Amino acid sequence: MMESNNKHNWKTKLHEVIYEADTPAGKLFDVILLIAILASIVLVMLESINSFDNKHHTFLNIAEWVITILFSLEYVARVISVKKPFKYIFSFYGVIDLLSTIPKYISLLMAGTHALVALRALRLLRVFRILKLARYLGASNQLAAAIKASRAKIAVFLFAVIIAAVIFGTIMYLVEGEKNGFTNIPKSVYWCIVTLTTVGFGDIAPVTPLGQFIATVIMILGYGIIAVPTGIVSAEYTKASGSDSGKLSDEEVVQLESVQLNTQCCVNCLTEQHQDGAEYCYKCGSPLHHNA
Amino acid sequence: MMESNNKHNWKTKLHEVIYEADTPAGKLFDVILLIAILASIVLVMLESINSFDNKHHTFLNIAEWVITILFSLEYVARVISVKKPFKYIFSFYGVIDLLSTIPKYISLLMAGTHALVALRALRLLRVFRILKLARYLGASNQLAAAIKASRAKIAVFLFAVIIAAVIFGTIMYLVEGEKNGFTNIPKSVYWCIVTLTTVGFGDIAPVTPLGQFIATVIMILGYGIIAVPTGIVSAEYTKASGSDSGKLSDEEVVQLESVQLNTQCCVNCLTEQHQDGAEYCYKCGSPLHHNA
Amino acid sequence: MMESNNKHNWKTKLHEVIYEADTPAGKLFDVILLIAILASIVLVMLESINSFDNKHHTFLNIAEWVITILFSLEYVARVISVKKPFKYIFSFYGVIDLLSTIPKYISLLMAGTHALVALRALRLLRVFRILKLARYLGASNQLAAAIKASRAKIAVFLFAVIIAAVIFGTIMYLVEGEKNGFTNIPKSVYWCIVTLTTVGFGDIAPVTPLGQFIATVIMILGYGIIAVPTGIVSAEYTKASGSDSGKLSDEEVVQLESVQLNTQCCVNCLTEQHQDGAEYCYKCGSPLHHNA
Amino acid sequence: MMESNNKHNWKTKLHEVIYEADTPAGKLFDVILLIAILASIVLVMLESINSFDNKHHTFLNIAEWVITILFSLEYVARVISVKKPFKYIFSFYGVIDLLSTIPKYISLLMAGTHALVALRALRLLRVFRILKLARYLGASNQLAAAIKASRAKIAVFLFAVIIAAVIFGTIMYLVEGEKNGFTNIPKSVYWCIVTLTTVGFGDIAPVTPLGQFIATVIMILGYGIIAVPTGIVSAEYTKASGSDSGKLSDEEVVQLESVQLNTQCCVNCLTEQHQDGAEYCYKCGSPLHHNA
Repeated sequence: MMESNNKHNWKTKLHEVIYEADTPAGKLFDVILLIAILASIVLVMLESINSFDNKHHTFLNIAEWVITILFSLEYVARVISVKKPFKYIFSFYGVIDLLSTIPKYISLLMAGTHALVALRALRLLRVFRILKLARYLGASNQLAAAIKASRAKIAVFLFAVIIAAVIFGTIMYLVEGEKNGFTNIPKSVYWCIVTLTTVGFGDIAPVTPLGQFIATVIMILGYGIIAVPTGIVSAEYTKASGSDSGKLSDEEVVQLESVQLNTQCCVNCLTEQHQDGAEYCYKCGSPLHHNA
Repeated sequence: MMESNNKHNWKTKLHEVIYEADTPAGKLFDVILLIAILASIVLVMLESINSFDNKHHTFLNIAEWVITILFSLEYVARVISVKKPFKYIFSFYGVIDLLSTIPKYISLLMAGTHALVALRALRLLRVFRILKLARYLGASNQLAAAIKASRAKIAVFLFAVIIAAVIFGTIMYLVEGEKNGFTNIPKSVYWCIVTLTTVGFGDIAPVTPLGQFIATVIMILGYGIIAVPTGIVSAEYTKASGSDSGKLSDEEVVQLESVQLNTQCCVNCLTEQHQDGAEYCYKCGSPLHHNA
Repeated sequence: MMESNNKHNWKTKLHEVIYEADTPAGKLFDVILLIAILASIVLVMLESINSFDNKHHTFLNIAEWVITILFSLEYVARVISVKKPFKYIFSFYGVIDLLSTIPKYISLLMAGTHALVALRALRLLRVFRILKLARYLGASNQLAAAIKASRAKIAVFLFAVIIAAVIFGTIMYLVEGEKNGFTNIPKSVYWCIVTLTTVGFGDIAPVTPLGQFIATVIMILGYGIIAVPTGIVSAEYTKASGSDSGKLSDEEVVQLESVQLNTQCCVNCLTEQHQDGAEYCYKCGSPLHHNA
Repeated sequence: MMESNNKHNWKTKLHEVIYEADTPAGKLFDVILLIAILASIVLVMLESINSFDNKHHTFLNIAEWVITILFSLEYVARVISVKKPFKYIFSFYGVIDLLSTIPKYISLLMAGTHALVALRALRLLRVFRILKLARYLGASNQLAAAIKASRAKIAVFLFAVIIAAVIFGTIMYLVEGEKNGFTNIPKSVYWCIVTLTTVGFGDIAPVTPLGQFIATVIMILGYGIIAVPTGIVSAEYTKASGSDSGKLSDEEVVQLESVQLNTQCCVNCLTEQHQDGAEYCYKCGSPLHHNA
């Protein structure tokens, strides 16, 4: 479905390879990038294991440099191939890309910057961009709609949970006291949320009979209210998926479902989600270049 | 949508600022109150941390006095600006307001009244009043309806859970005995609820093979029955939200949804939830004063 | 709605008081019985607390004798007032009544019969009979229907959970071994169910990296499959309650809902759930006596 | 409904007994096999308990040999009675059957092959084949459909959970550090999944206030997102069961539901799920032999 186009130059070609997944080269780029990201995460993990780091420090160092250079090249290519580089640089993924590339360079300047591993873990967020492919699985759209629709309700609900945790936490602090591990109110509130969410670490546990009775009330409360967010998402999701298939006529379904999106990404404004076969960007009007 | 009204005096103006959120002054008052409440909760928490309290005791003391005086002024203003002060004083929020204001005064009279922090934590409940604003998010109404509709069913269900906990608790007390931590039946029942609700602290855990087998049965039972309250809320919520949009004609939907409520509060009887544009209280008939 | 009836004698009157809850005397009997049962459970619990039992042993002993004699009288009255005593004696509640009454008598014959407290805890099951009153809350019927409808599906599902627990338990036994607490396969399976049901006591926890990795898989699996029984009950319940209100015409709803049951209980065959105003038992045809 | 057929020989008879459950002999075979499998699993468990193994080693050894020989005979019979033996041998159940039969033979050749118990636990998977009978309970079909329909969505969701676990795990590793049990990032990620899934072993627990605060965020997040897979399965299941009864006309329901499957299994290609009364395999066209 690709048309021949004589404006092709290496920049638009690069843009297509990096930002889109319609062409074989674009797909290959995405797969390689995915592997590089996952390998880099494995490296971060291995480096944190002392026994492994001691034995294979040189290997880990070289591997991290290879990945850092690969990501640097990718970052430069992304900046070059876009018409408005600053728009990319200050976009969400632009910042993530930069932050997840620089830790190794910073470690050259400053020694012992332990905290930089957190920046390296950010690389995982980049997986989401590649998984625009997931859209084709037809899986995430309804799910996202259901979560979005119930967001406000879940927020109100979680707010109520936190208020309950603070009040019960204060009571438990008074009942159990410092000698039984409830050393202060924040710690008591922490214990209360551990209990309400049914996690139950057991690092702190009530010892007095009254404390255990109140804990019982908190647990049954938590048991009862765990039903609420579940019920909300479930109902919203039923509505979201029900309105697609159940209540619309066949014609309407066709109209809604037939818009097939592709992975193209406007070279000018980086807008995504273009219809299959679209010639111009629906946002800025600049032409979308197709592979010949 | 505000009409000029020549009955304005400082009392009705004060009422509008304190009890309503339609005017800029009313909104500002609510935001300041919200910040004061949250700050006061943070103070309570910090005070409970011994190391912090030792260092900054004077600061904490002064800050608590400032907030106590602010809340006292607010309480007096609420009493003055209402036509029937006793109705406010003995209302739910009136009692909460008083109780959460007085702890510091009591501490002047009696030393070492540790338990008063619980009263101060009650301030958090006042947040709910301010969050009548949350109504505008359109979030809490359906949620409240779903919980209300399933209240009786969840009560019957929780009752069954408690009976199961008592019977299994007694059995575990017999099987495991005092040497393994099941020192008496109430503690055994506590353990049983910890297990049934899938919290699982691990402060007490079965040691004998038979005890572990019974624990397995309890856990799988708990796993199976956690589905019940969730299913109930989910179904009720689906019904509640389904009947709004799915089964009513468009006309009915308009009739139901078009009633827009505002944050006005009758100066005479404190009734809330007046329709936008209402001139008189729908409960006592006294005029609702609007800002010019 | 009670009609005068000249066949009244003390036996049918007794039957009405004990087995039914339509008359003031019948309601009073149920309330007293409920209090006696709950008091007896509290006694069992207090007796198990060593420090309390040592101090108040005589009081606990007398109180238990009082309740035992009360229950004995009730048992005799139940046997007398029924036309077919053996049918009652060998019914579910007949056996429960007998078993929960005799422990104190047995303790006279044999000393140190610790295990009898389990029999006494069975008294709690008798609460369910009294709570035929709960039917009037209109709460338990749909709930019971939903659970009944999803019983087979939940059984199949739990069976799959148990198979998964056995296979993963064996693997964890091999991976972690005896030194890390996985002393044998049954204990490993116990740990596996503790994990799958998200209880997580922490009395046994994987120590080796491989064991922790497998534990992660088990937990995510458990997280994923906890959705299944919930989804089933939720859907069944939606169907059960949906077919009542949503898909039937108003006439049908009336036909289904208008059958009001009362608490009468046939004096001949103990059948319950008679319609309000019924003159004869719908099962054995013997007349239902009403209070004049 | 069985027709006389003169092509009967011992091979097709054996096939019918082993692979199908329509005849009394076939049902008996399945029941015996089920008992043998469960007995063999009990043996594996008992053998892992050191105290039991020391006392009854000879008994366990003999019993395991009896079951191994029984399974060997069954395996040979399965290979003989099928027209295309290699198709069976390399099928899923063919491999499971072989692997779960050979451990005892291998233990003759090599001593101390502890890991073979895992192979023996695989026998449990064979239960699923016998439970094709479960189809008749009418329970598993809708369930399987609901799980299948929500598979992709749950996968996307679990993927997001894992990414969250890696990022939060890295942060917790930095905040808590090695001295508080978060010795490396993989262990931190393990802890994070233990917390997100609300299992909460407590073998590792945050100690610093900041770590406990982040743990609180993780727990509330986990509490909020546990709703998502539940909501998905619930909605899919409602749709799956709703489309059967709610939206189809009676005629359509009849058409969909009337296809009654039996337990026959084609002697040529091992295809299952033939309609009741089918004469020829719907896949390869070879005749299905019925018992006379």
